[in-house]
Amino acid sequence: MRQNETHQDAQAITPQASIMSPMYKIGVLTSSDMGARGEREDTSGELIKELLALPDYEHTRYSVVPDERAIIEQTLTTWADDDDLDLIMTTGGTGLTDRDVMPEATRAVVERLAPGLAEAMRAFGLTKTPMAMLSRGIAGVRGRTLIINLPGSPKGVREGIEVLLPVLGHALGQLTGENRGH
Amino acid sequence: MRQNETHQDAQAITPQASIMSPMYKIGVLTSSDMGARGEREDTSGELIKELLALPDYEHTRYSVVPDERAIIEQTLTTWADDDDLDLIMTTGGTGLTDRDVMPEATRAVVERLAPGLAEAMRAFGLTKTPMAMLSRGIAGVRGRTLIINLPGSPKGVREGIEVLLPVLGHALGQLTGENRGH
Amino acid sequence: MRQNETHQDAQAITPQASIMSPMYKIGVLTSSDMGARGEREDTSGELIKELLALPDYEHTRYSVVPDERAIIEQTLTTWADDDDLDLIMTTGGTGLTDRDVMPEATRAVVERLAPGLAEAMRAFGLTKTPMAMLSRGIAGVRGRTLIINLPGSPKGVREGIEVLLPVLGHALGQLTGENRGH
Repeated sequence: MRQNETHQDAQAITPQASIMSPMYKIGVLTSSDMGARGEREDTSGELIKELLALPDYEHTRYSVVPDERAIIEQTLTTWADDDDLDLIMTTGGTGLTDRDVMPEATRAVVERLAPGLAEAMRAFGLTKTPMAMLSRGIAGVRGRTLIINLPGSPKGVREGIEVLLPVLGHALGQLTGENRGH
Repeated sequence: MRQNETHQDAQAITPQASIMSPMYKIGVLTSSDMGARGEREDTSGELIKELLALPDYEHTRYSVVPDERAIIEQTLTTWADDDDLDLIMTTGGTGLTDRDVMPEATRAVVERLAPGLAEAMRAFGLTKTPMAMLSRGIAGVRGRTLIINLPGSPKGVREGIEVLLPVLGHALGQLTGENRGH
Repeated sequence: MRQNETHQDAQAITPQASIMSPMYKIGVLTSSDMGARGEREDTSGELIKELLALPDYEHTRYSVVPDERAIIEQTLTTWADDDDLDLIMTTGGTGLTDRDVMPEATRAVVERLAPGLAEAMRAFGLTKTPMAMLSRGIAGVRGRTLIINLPGSPKGVREGIEVLLPVLGHALGQLTGENRGH
């Protein structure tokens, strides 16, 4: 009884908490052999950070790694398990060549696939260019971390985030338990 | 002998049987922790039964189970293998949280995926709300049983069945050998 | 040295080589029990060859096999690994029955999935007929060979190739290293 009252009081101290948006921890991971060697500017990764520079999102991790499955998997795993990121956005490595291993690396570390996110991005992309059908990106969840593969090009990144923005808050709220009742 | 005659008689009563549509056996499986505890009415499951209350469909199984992979897999397997259902429609458990295990349970028991069914439902859902891209449902076949994950909400159920109805008869006919030549 | 000079000479004879489109080696694989027994004409396979009778494409393999996973997998593997095909188009075996094993056979031999190709074909197909959602085809890459499952019907083949043609050249160029920088 007393505990319940105390609990009520604790909530009363932060009356804005329930109506304020939570702060989500974001990571941006770019897969690019040339980028990792410093031979190419990471325009796409920087663009993700710029487009997600929103009140609710705190950018806590950013890295440019070579197109190596082991390195990508290690980074995703560490960011999800140790650094407790809520969202990891990747760019690059979703083409057809044998150096494009982002979907396979992501598949290996997620526990639950979210195929609708990639489908929606490609469907929207197809309204701009047929080349969108070649992007092999996937999306899924590891623990409470949502991992989404964006295309490698700045144009693909911009269109992908345009598609995702209306649902990202809801998705992250679901994963962090903010709106589990939905 | 007598039994056979009785059986023959029973068939003779329905002489149209061969030219009438076959009767498909349907199961509806709802995954919901609260529903299984009796704390929430299974509006979505009831809606599926109502929308599929069609001449060709005989509803023979219905259950509300908690969001547990083992229980869902066991139910799907029994309904497909022992009870010879032609179609199992599920609702619930397709969100992003770690209690949403319907797609994983379904994936574990189906032998052949039918990705186009889930893609079509999500694509149609996207014309109503961007949230449709968060549904993780899949569809596939175990033996001759078609298993389809519908979303958890009544709205998602209604839209999903609207998408599926034009092809369900053909799909079930293909699986039961009624129109194998197609 | 001499060999090098000879090689140089050989190149000099075809000075257009570097600015001409490369020649891609194509295989067409039809999965059909009746076709393999010679009881049905392979209209769909012939249609693929006709629609891809293009300057850049050299048709080097064509076969009609029964709906058997082992035979399909063996053919795909040989064509990709030993015969160095750039593109294998399949038709048939993408329905729902237990004789429809093309997606499973393809899944077993590809190393990288390209889900967007199948999604785009089905989405376009849905604008023609809801039955398109029942096609279970997939696409992916084995080594440098792109493998794409087309539907079994001539109508499905025609629509599928209509969707793919705008991106096939780019896809094959990426795989053969012609436009890796993209």
